[in-house]
Amino acid sequence: MNVGGKPMRTIWLEADGASVGIIDQTRLPHALVTAKLATLEEAADAIRTMRVRGAPLIGATAAYGVALAMRADPGDAALAAACRTLNATRPTAVNLRWALDEMRHVLAPLAPAQRAGRAYERAAAICEEDVIINRGIATAGLKLVEAAWSRRRKRGKVEILTHCNAGWLAAVDWGTALAPIYLAHDRGIPVHVWVDETRPRNQGAALTAWELGQHGVPHTVIADNAGGHLMQKGRVDLCITGTDRTTAAGDVANKIGTYLKALAAHDNDVPFYVALPSPTIDWSISDGLKQIPIEERDPSEVTEISGRLESGAIATVRLTPAGSPAANFAFDVTPARLVSALITERGVCPASRDGLLSLFPERRAQLAGE
Amino acid sequence: MNVGGKPMRTIWLEADGASVGIIDQTRLPHALVTAKLATLEEAADAIRTMRVRGAPLIGATAAYGVALAMRADPGDAALAAACRTLNATRPTAVNLRWALDEMRHVLAPLAPAQRAGRAYERAAAICEEDVIINRGIATAGLKLVEAAWSRRRKRGKVEILTHCNAGWLAAVDWGTALAPIYLAHDRGIPVHVWVDETRPRNQGAALTAWELGQHGVPHTVIADNAGGHLMQKGRVDLCITGTDRTTAAGDVANKIGTYLKALAAHDNDVPFYVALPSPTIDWSISDGLKQIPIEERDPSEVTEISGRLESGAIATVRLTPAGSPAANFAFDVTPARLVSALITERGVCPASRDGLLSLFPERRAQLAGE
Repeated sequence: MNVGGKPMRTIWLEADGASVGIIDQTRLPHALVTAKLATLEEAADAIRTMRVRGAPLIGATAAYGVALAMRADPGDAALAAACRTLNATRPTAVNLRWALDEMRHVLAPLAPAQRAGRAYERAAAICEEDVIINRGIATAGLKLVEAAWSRRRKRGKVEILTHCNAGWLAAVDWGTALAPIYLAHDRGIPVHVWVDETRPRNQGAALTAWELGQHGVPHTVIADNAGGHLMQKGRVDLCITGTDRTTAAGDVANKIGTYLKALAAHDNDVPFYVALPSPTIDWSISDGLKQIPIEERDPSEVTEISGRLESGAIATVRLTPAGSPAANFAFDVTPARLVSALITERGVCPASRDGLLSLFPERRAQLAGE
Repeated sequence: MNVGGKPMRTIWLEADGASVGIIDQTRLPHALVTAKLATLEEAADAIRTMRVRGAPLIGATAAYGVALAMRADPGDAALAAACRTLNATRPTAVNLRWALDEMRHVLAPLAPAQRAGRAYERAAAICEEDVIINRGIATAGLKLVEAAWSRRRKRGKVEILTHCNAGWLAAVDWGTALAPIYLAHDRGIPVHVWVDETRPRNQGAALTAWELGQHGVPHTVIADNAGGHLMQKGRVDLCITGTDRTTAAGDVANKIGTYLKALAAHDNDVPFYVALPSPTIDWSISDGLKQIPIEERDPSEVTEISGRLESGAIATVRLTPAGSPAANFAFDVTPARLVSALITERGVCPASRDGLLSLFPERRAQLAGE
């Protein structure tokens, strides 16, 4: 998507043909800083310190991390060590595991001299595949935005609420929840996005607002508390969020607070859509509330917050009294009954086992066998 | 309630017999600072800048504001001007209106020379009446906490979720939503409070956490997004919030986000109680969604946040990108159907016209006449 009027991705091969460029996302939204990753260690560090984040982008960075390692030393020991180092950066990231397995699978059978070239090719292909999936989501979701535009009789703007960041910053390009919004905007449908700030890590206020603003998509940042009120007042036409993990029954684990917005959408007859690349479907489980463990993160994310001082410097301030404990639940589960539809790269389907099987019939045997 | 082991109130007549002491609540939780109000303008400014906040405390401060005005000039024009000035400070506060009507009603018939003395008397009485009302709420609500304790078979702690600050800091003493919690705690029932941080102004993280901590009540601060997840997991026995305005049909206008918690409570069969002093009942309206205007506050409350730097200094940091607009809705309306019961100083009743009339039968003629 565009940054300062020019197309940009979250990760790219630099002109030297060897090092890898990224946006340092820890500096957003207050500064756009890019970084060059020239070694395995730099790639691992970028993932570890969350300068790159978002499941697909972590996978892409890990793939390039293996390529950087092969360039320095294409031997078997170096390949194993690179995968081990990268694997340890983010313990719960499924895409990270997938990308490393894929690189190992492709590179291990090759002679060492061939590995570096092939690694760069495969890493680039992983990035392209991600872009293709997310363009599929954009195309599928566009129909839902168009339908809302028709319901409005093409008056005003299509009002869309989103939670957290499921935009191109979390992927290589396009994003998931924001992909249909970018496509609608580019096609000339007037859209306006209500951006939940998404406490405690403020991915909405920091990242979603920044990327929408850079691409020129009208938007307004709101407190997470405000969405219900906006829906009661008829000021939201549809909600779209991403998901970290979707069960075979259509339950959705996503950023904490998603469930509350889904309840409000349901109570006010506002469609609530969840956009997902099919690799985030966990076909092995069907009860999200019982089967998806919810990560608890450091309470300091609740008790402290970082931002930009008037001087331009970044500072961290404490929000709570010194003696008060805090708890930090990272995700919640939205039951399928509250999800109007799932938007995948293969199209839109009901949030149910049958809905998902209608788009992914090849999974029928797997689900029947359980 | 206790601060540093000693009882304290939010507003008091100073030893000089003329100026009015308050806690500067904008300095909490990082510093306990008191301020003296010596003029009408200082009182109006304290309300406007939210150094005092919470419906009952705003009413009490407005009453003292009229007294301060009468001390400077007890004429008819000054009385009218004082009421006008104070009335304009907070558009949604029904207690403010009530207190000003009461002061005008008491003072207007008097000779100017008698007004100042009577104004101080009436303001002091309004404070005492508030304490009596809130002790009534404490007593009525205690039964609900005891019932939850019985349902738990007296194991663990009664887990209570609250939103915003409806504690003694919002009143003169005791508070509304927190009053039953303080009484239960003082009576030896083990309670634990989940404190919604309550963005954008963080009254939960700053004020509720502080006052519960000072009184020794166990509590944990959470992001506003977390309450639904906790209810899904059975970790909330009941919710209690306050209200700024309640309709004759039991609809509740309260801090933005209250509606989302009520939806989650309803979805998970968790009782959702609203504690209110009867003066916050607006008997003239019955449809909260249509008839209660929702205040929009400065967007900077969403885009910026203040807290304590490691140095101890208070700093404001910007959270959003420079070009991104924000919107700041202060309240939402929770329909009566989502409210399990109302807790008033006269007892507990269903959130309905008939429920309210069972406790306030003297209003029957008024409602019938509409």
